[in-house]
Amino acid sequence: MDVREAVQRRRSTRAFEPDTLRMKREEIDDLIVQACLAPSEYNLQPWRFIVVRDSEKKQVLFECTYRQEKIREAGAVIIVCGDRKGFETAPRVLSDMVAQGTVPADQAGPAAESIMRQYQDSEQAREFLALRNPCLAAMQLMLLATERGIATCPMGGFSESELRAAFHIPDHIVPVMLLAMGLPSTAAPQPPKGMRLPASEIIFHETMESSL
Amino acid sequence: MDVREAVQRRRSTRAFEPDTLRMKREEIDDLIVQACLAPSEYNLQPWRFIVVRDSEKKQVLFECTYRQEKIREAGAVIIVCGDRKGFETAPRVLSDMVAQGTVPADQAGPAAESIMRQYQDSEQAREFLALRNPCLAAMQLMLLATERGIATCPMGGFSESELRAAFHIPDHIVPVMLLAMGLPSTAAPQPPKGMRLPASEIIFHETMESSL
Repeated sequence: MDVREAVQRRRSTRAFEPDTLRMKREEIDDLIVQACLAPSEYNLQPWRFIVVRDSEKKQVLFECTYRQEKIREAGAVIIVCGDRKGFETAPRVLSDMVAQGTVPADQAGPAAESIMRQYQDSEQAREFLALRNPCLAAMQLMLLATERGIATCPMGGFSESELRAAFHIPDHIVPVMLLAMGLPSTAAPQPPKGMRLPASEIIFHETMESSL
Repeated sequence: MDVREAVQRRRSTRAFEPDTLRMKREEIDDLIVQACLAPSEYNLQPWRFIVVRDSEKKQVLFECTYRQEKIREAGAVIIVCGDRKGFETAPRVLSDMVAQGTVPADQAGPAAESIMRQYQDSEQAREFLALRNPCLAAMQLMLLATERGIATCPMGGFSESELRAAFHIPDHIVPVMLLAMGLPSTAAPQPPKGMRLPASEIIFHETMESSL
């Protein structure tokens, strides 16, 4: 399935076929690994994923998400997270660049230090780190799933405190969104694509000045 | 090109072929419109895009991004933004759902009010709105470009204040990332895919507990 087709076919599926698809752990892991070929700032890869397949755990997650039935129906739900301390990966990224010959060995240490300092010095940089990059991986995951015939639904509504407690998510990890996955319900039709804002409201040329 | 191939082929291109590809406005607009088939919370579509193609404006952008040469080389650079007031689209989204028959007419007003109140009451909800959704669209844009043979480079490093001043970006609009686009340089090789963290460090099953 080409990219354009996958982009057009993907729907945020509202209802899954219950119990028909207990997704295999290996398949989910493979989807995540592929999705993590997404870009990230300085290649820090600050994304983390909690894969929830167990029925009892899905019941807990159902309670954390204001009792949305699709959580229980889904074959798996992934809690997509970002790591505010993800900048600590910098020395490993730089070592890899030395090994690839793209950074001289004597510059790796100072470069890693400089990257880490940017995040240590700025709460906004840490928030951006934890929020932007996991979304890039999540979007790739949805498209890869679409290509394999797996329906997905991204979900932004959850109780952060309940989620943290139930899934032992430490403070420096930010739950960014949930991704429910499974077979689409045969009883409920796939939702139509929602209305789209006209291009003139979202695209500006050279400046925002004239338009706002 | 299938999704998996596009995911694997996409690179964050470090150098573009200067001046060979002044990207057409229509082509860029079409890529953005396709990319905006991405999901967004409540279908609010809080993404905004400033397309920079003009040489003088690219020179200004070059100064806002700590003088990274790829900005000047690129055929176009898109300033991907999020709108903290994007929740104001809610009444239009609900009207569309009434037209589609998915929401009864008498529930549309209260539902739109309820959605808007969630964002009015929570700064975090507004930040998530402005940061998460544009990243989903940006990732689709990069994959769609890859499929068309257009190289891209997402860039997180810029002076927010300089960018706001130069491109007249109002306070409620958040510059989320830049996307440089063009033909990859024939002189500089495409960078190898950077190292990837092992799955065991990014994927957790059922809980984060045992691992952190």
